[in-house]
Amino acid sequence: MNTIRVILAGPRGRMGIEALRLIADTEHFELVAAVDRIHEGKYISEIEGLPKLQAPIYTDIEKCLKEVKADVLVDLTTPEIGRVHTKKALEYGVRPVVGTTGFSEEDLQELKQLSSEKGIGCIIAPNFAIGAILMMKFSQMAAKYFSDVEIIELHHDNKLDAPSGTGLKTAELISEVRETKKQGHPEEKEILIGARGATYDGIHLHSVRLPGLIAHQEVLFGGFGESLKIRHDSYNRASFMSGVKLSVETVMKIDVLVYGLENIIE
Amino acid sequence: MNTIRVILAGPRGRMGIEALRLIADTEHFELVAAVDRIHEGKYISEIEGLPKLQAPIYTDIEKCLKEVKADVLVDLTTPEIGRVHTKKALEYGVRPVVGTTGFSEEDLQELKQLSSEKGIGCIIAPNFAIGAILMMKFSQMAAKYFSDVEIIELHHDNKLDAPSGTGLKTAELISEVRETKKQGHPEEKEILIGARGATYDGIHLHSVRLPGLIAHQEVLFGGFGESLKIRHDSYNRASFMSGVKLSVETVMKIDVLVYGLENIIE
Amino acid sequence: MNTIRVILAGPRGRMGIEALRLIADTEHFELVAAVDRIHEGKYISEIEGLPKLQAPIYTDIEKCLKEVKADVLVDLTTPEIGRVHTKKALEYGVRPVVGTTGFSEEDLQELKQLSSEKGIGCIIAPNFAIGAILMMKFSQMAAKYFSDVEIIELHHDNKLDAPSGTGLKTAELISEVRETKKQGHPEEKEILIGARGATYDGIHLHSVRLPGLIAHQEVLFGGFGESLKIRHDSYNRASFMSGVKLSVETVMKIDVLVYGLENIIE
Amino acid sequence: MNTIRVILAGPRGRMGIEALRLIADTEHFELVAAVDRIHEGKYISEIEGLPKLQAPIYTDIEKCLKEVKADVLVDLTTPEIGRVHTKKALEYGVRPVVGTTGFSEEDLQELKQLSSEKGIGCIIAPNFAIGAILMMKFSQMAAKYFSDVEIIELHHDNKLDAPSGTGLKTAELISEVRETKKQGHPEEKEILIGARGATYDGIHLHSVRLPGLIAHQEVLFGGFGESLKIRHDSYNRASFMSGVKLSVETVMKIDVLVYGLENIIE
Repeated sequence: MNTIRVILAGPRGRMGIEALRLIADTEHFELVAAVDRIHEGKYISEIEGLPKLQAPIYTDIEKCLKEVKADVLVDLTTPEIGRVHTKKALEYGVRPVVGTTGFSEEDLQELKQLSSEKGIGCIIAPNFAIGAILMMKFSQMAAKYFSDVEIIELHHDNKLDAPSGTGLKTAELISEVRETKKQGHPEEKEILIGARGATYDGIHLHSVRLPGLIAHQEVLFGGFGESLKIRHDSYNRASFMSGVKLSVETVMKIDVLVYGLENIIE
Repeated sequence: MNTIRVILAGPRGRMGIEALRLIADTEHFELVAAVDRIHEGKYISEIEGLPKLQAPIYTDIEKCLKEVKADVLVDLTTPEIGRVHTKKALEYGVRPVVGTTGFSEEDLQELKQLSSEKGIGCIIAPNFAIGAILMMKFSQMAAKYFSDVEIIELHHDNKLDAPSGTGLKTAELISEVRETKKQGHPEEKEILIGARGATYDGIHLHSVRLPGLIAHQEVLFGGFGESLKIRHDSYNRASFMSGVKLSVETVMKIDVLVYGLENIIE
Repeated sequence: MNTIRVILAGPRGRMGIEALRLIADTEHFELVAAVDRIHEGKYISEIEGLPKLQAPIYTDIEKCLKEVKADVLVDLTTPEIGRVHTKKALEYGVRPVVGTTGFSEEDLQELKQLSSEKGIGCIIAPNFAIGAILMMKFSQMAAKYFSDVEIIELHHDNKLDAPSGTGLKTAELISEVRETKKQGHPEEKEILIGARGATYDGIHLHSVRLPGLIAHQEVLFGGFGESLKIRHDSYNRASFMSGVKLSVETVMKIDVLVYGLENIIE
Repeated sequence: MNTIRVILAGPRGRMGIEALRLIADTEHFELVAAVDRIHEGKYISEIEGLPKLQAPIYTDIEKCLKEVKADVLVDLTTPEIGRVHTKKALEYGVRPVVGTTGFSEEDLQELKQLSSEKGIGCIIAPNFAIGAILMMKFSQMAAKYFSDVEIIELHHDNKLDAPSGTGLKTAELISEVRETKKQGHPEEKEILIGARGATYDGIHLHSVRLPGLIAHQEVLFGGFGESLKIRHDSYNRASFMSGVKLSVETVMKIDVLVYGLENIIE
């Protein structure tokens, strides 16, 4: 496999550090530069807590893109900065891989057009955890054959919102492919309010919050005499790295903008 | 082990048929008679669908107790009939093992006194599934060390009530040993109403209903960096038989009335 | 939906009885005849233990196909009888749905050609449990992204062979899409022989056998900081019926022979 | 609750840092000193990476015990150093809580006698994860009622030994209470060698190794028509802290040496 030269933006964030490790551990990836808010002119290896990689740090994306020959920009900054980085990268012919949920529909349209004009790939992903994406994809597929489904998502008890974003997203994906259906016995009743959970288009969602837990989800399907369960466990931030790796490899082979890893997974 | 001579009341019910199989399959159990509403004078082996056991059928409990030498009466009838059977058995010195949730506090007091007077054991059990009882017992024990707990119970979608009786009973047992605690983040909020389930004394309960499922429950505990899960699966009616077997063996060794299998399990 | 007229061969077997129930419960299915070894001239409703369906019983498939107007033949007999039934049905323009693992490669070739000549669909399925088929399909898909996988299959303790057929089949499907890989630490060692299970092309398989269990399988994938689990539970024979239903509906829309339900599932 | 004054030995180890956090976060615990190999005369708050606690560091245990008034010594060093620390603490009337698997039977006897002479508690624990200890305790209890059991332990793929220490220990505890039993069908056969796992006194053990996993174990019991599963998940080192906390609280109330947390859990 040809070596892919990577610029990483946001090397000191929690995701950024994992990305540095990934690049260091992947034989056909090479870090050629990093873009940071500070540390202009230093090397990654000089920054405490970062891996010993000999890549120079730039604070200006344009200067970086001019001076360094790169194939891919991995951007793990904020939506505001990421938007600028992505555009500049496309203009300089460097393929962006961006982890964000913060781009507007307009941002995406503009980047899509730019990507097409330049004829180079661009991947924008709200979620890089391939396991979670497969869980959602399989759930949608299974819902065609099992119209009865419930979602249980389990998180640490510091989480504020219930259900989780992934839980809701899964319910949305399922509801796209099945007819609305009220599940359970038509006359079922809650002896304690809330027992049957929340409902989205007839699908029941249950949110468990316990100390110790991290981020987990089960999607349960039931049919004649059988059940099917798809469970994803995310144990730590490293779970995002398999998706970053796949994106860096895939963005080299495509010539359009793709939004969402589910669209590069077969 | 000495052979235990058993009278079975209610041999044609769904539980009764399982009990006949259990007795037939257990070397140290012997069926000496059955009590039924009909079939006076016939033998179990003559009734279609029942195992080939050579025990006579009586319609009158008193006549049965007078004519047949027995150690234990296993009663799987209704609360009304069972109440009479249990009393008569105690009077005749036969130890009752009764599966019912229908006895009143007064019934139990009266039977308790009778049992003590006669100095013979008597076991009344609302639930014979040892696995379910262990799940509840372990949950109560674990709650002393993990104050954060949620209950997920899963049943077929013909079930009307949510949460299930076992789910509620588990929450009650846990709340006996832990101080009331509101779990989850103090500011957590439900984006979809019901997502966090029902609560009983601060314990969250979630009820899943899907076709194909039978009767299942998970009790989840969370603490610093770890979680503990106790799960029980009941696949069919035979799950009650291990408790009947244990009760028949145990009732021979005790000389008081015990209510609930949790009290004979160590 | 148009009513589909069904002939059922093998109505008294355990699968056959479930199929009768399925047909009775499905509005757009109609039982027009049954083929049995005995009971010529009787009606299904006259046979003890069978549902009250007014369909005539034939002992000769050819006579049945001549006299009864049907769309689909559901065959749940033996491979020997099923082979003859399938051929005859195709000749008479009736679409076969056959549940068997017993057809040879030659049988399949011959039936495939006959199906094409007649231009009508034919579905031969070694396994009708859609949940199990989805589990295998998803496992194969996930293996493209997670090269580390282990299979745990759990069955009742009357099962003789370990691993199960489904466990092995899953391993085969996975090995088709991933490069051979020795999993686990290169220097791992078994303190007790067998702890790491069986291996098939580097994939570890573990067989659990316990009383009470029925037929269950988990496929576990592990990657950076995450894991993905796909679990199927088969609780009873009815689990096959969703696949029979799907096959009867699908065979009406295709004009070739399809072997294996995985090929009609998208 | 009265404040418990704690000396911590081994503050810079991975366990030690978690222990410092625990003490900082527990209102009725107070860190009065630390014992380290280096940093004599400094304060914990001066050492990079440690919490801002104002406790002095000693390199000599005896000097520390003489100068500082303390109730409990938490020792998270090595067996060699811990042996000396424990003895000295007992001599000075300070109650030891020691996390180690490395003490010999003779060490334990000597410390036991010393503890009795002084009339103060001492807790030596090979494992502080309460969840894991409860799993083992419950498994032993359940084995009295379910003689069929299999153990599945799942760890990251850097683990060398299979089965894990906890898996083996669980099997040992179970075998103490049940008669030896060969499980599974008497004529079962492995189509692939190793499928049925390792056996210890008739109990089957299965070891799963996958990247991403941390430390997990399931103990499965099967009986008539039901199954019971006890599962423990250890997500990170913090899982040991609940046991350290319980031990510090308990050691104040006992006046003998206790080996193993299972003996202070009811």
